[in-house]
Amino acid sequence: MLKLYSTPGTCSLASHIALEESGAAYEAESIDFAKQQQRSADFLRVNPKGRVPALVTDRGIITESPAILAYIGQSFPDSAIGVPKDPFEFARIQSFNAYLCSTVHVAHAHKRRGSRWADDPAAIEVMTLKVAGNMGDCFELIENTMFSGPWVMGETYSVADPYLFTLTGWLEGDGVDPARFPKVFDHFQRMTERPAVKKVLAAVTV
Amino acid sequence: MLKLYSTPGTCSLASHIALEESGAAYEAESIDFAKQQQRSADFLRVNPKGRVPALVTDRGIITESPAILAYIGQSFPDSAIGVPKDPFEFARIQSFNAYLCSTVHVAHAHKRRGSRWADDPAAIEVMTLKVAGNMGDCFELIENTMFSGPWVMGETYSVADPYLFTLTGWLEGDGVDPARFPKVFDHFQRMTERPAVKKVLAAVTV
Ligand SMILES: N[C@@H](CCC(=O)N[C@@H](CS)C(=O)NCC(=O)O)C(=O)O
Ligand SMILES: N[C@@H](CCC(=O)N[C@@H](CS)C(=O)NCC(=O)O)C(=O)O
Repeated sequence: MLKLYSTPGTCSLASHIALEESGAAYEAESIDFAKQQQRSADFLRVNPKGRVPALVTDRGIITESPAILAYIGQSFPDSAIGVPKDPFEFARIQSFNAYLCSTVHVAHAHKRRGSRWADDPAAIEVMTLKVAGNMGDCFELIENTMFSGPWVMGETYSVADPYLFTLTGWLEGDGVDPARFPKVFDHFQRMTERPAVKKVLAAVTV
Repeated sequence: MLKLYSTPGTCSLASHIALEESGAAYEAESIDFAKQQQRSADFLRVNPKGRVPALVTDRGIITESPAILAYIGQSFPDSAIGVPKDPFEFARIQSFNAYLCSTVHVAHAHKRRGSRWADDPAAIEVMTLKVAGNMGDCFELIENTMFSGPWVMGETYSVADPYLFTLTGWLEGDGVDPARFPKVFDHFQRMTERPAVKKVLAAVTV
């Protein structure tokens, strides 16, 4: 059985929703950041990077959201979350997910995880000032040049949808009004109505 | 014919080498950062993010290194760079590439592109101080927990190899001695002996 290590409020929500949509048998174990469990010796054996998500399969452990999402999509091709075999259609999804992972997530991380890139508290504080602007710029680009509608890729729901949903959910906390991006905001609201999303949100909300 | 927009010295080298290894017919066009060509109206029509690499295909444009690399690997499955159909083997490659894209590349970018995440020159300066340490930590993790050898994934050369090669090439400039990572350093040197790598390096070196 697949096992997902995840933490409420983090990017691991995307992988959790994708698993639920896939119909796969899985269990989810929560890693408690308040207790720094992601840096415990036990968890570092699962993921030496000390991060969530991590997906345990019977062949080995997969880390990195885009890799986990593509793995779920390829492993359950006939589910709601199945990814296309066509290399170009697949690349569209991968490109979107790589942007979220390398640029949008990273822009957000400068708010609470600035100590990754600077030691001086004043510099870390300065970084937080740019987070709202950067997240706003990223979502403007998504709204205007990447989002096809009604789902991210167009008519077909894909692993890009729970990933976008997860990062859209960070906007308010980052000081950005999600209503500025009408298509993305509507997508966010429609996502919350999906049974799989409801089920996962209920499971991770304590 | 495929067309790659790339810039010498950047992450686009990985996609360039992968194209050469694939045997595909392609042309490469250089985007001149010294002239800020990546922010020209013409190039923003190709990639609204204003970044390289961007791959023009007859179906549309693909951006983001991991997406381009997987696309080349899936489109030329029988070439030196072909990616496996097995979802788990493919996920191993994707996970490695996503780490390079979201963590290693980003660690490096805090040296010259700090203005993405802070406006204050003093904070930008402070960020540069952590680059060598972060790059060193990333490559220690790669050396000790990710690199299988002789190639990144083990016996089989893959799209992860030109990507690692490209980022290893940044270490010295980031103040890290690549010889600290014997397996990765040996990989770097073996890569320079591959005909495809020689050909691309000769083409991009002016
Ligand atoms: N590139 C990774 C990033 C994973 C990541 O940064 N996860 C965060 C939560 S969103 C984490 O585990 N942070 C814990 C820490 O920094 O200690 C991915 O996309 O999966
Ligand atoms: N996540 C993207 C990052 C692309 C990127 O940042 N490219 C850099 C060169 S390594 C660039 O075009 N920089 C130009 C600029 O920032 O103006 C990828 O992996 O392809």
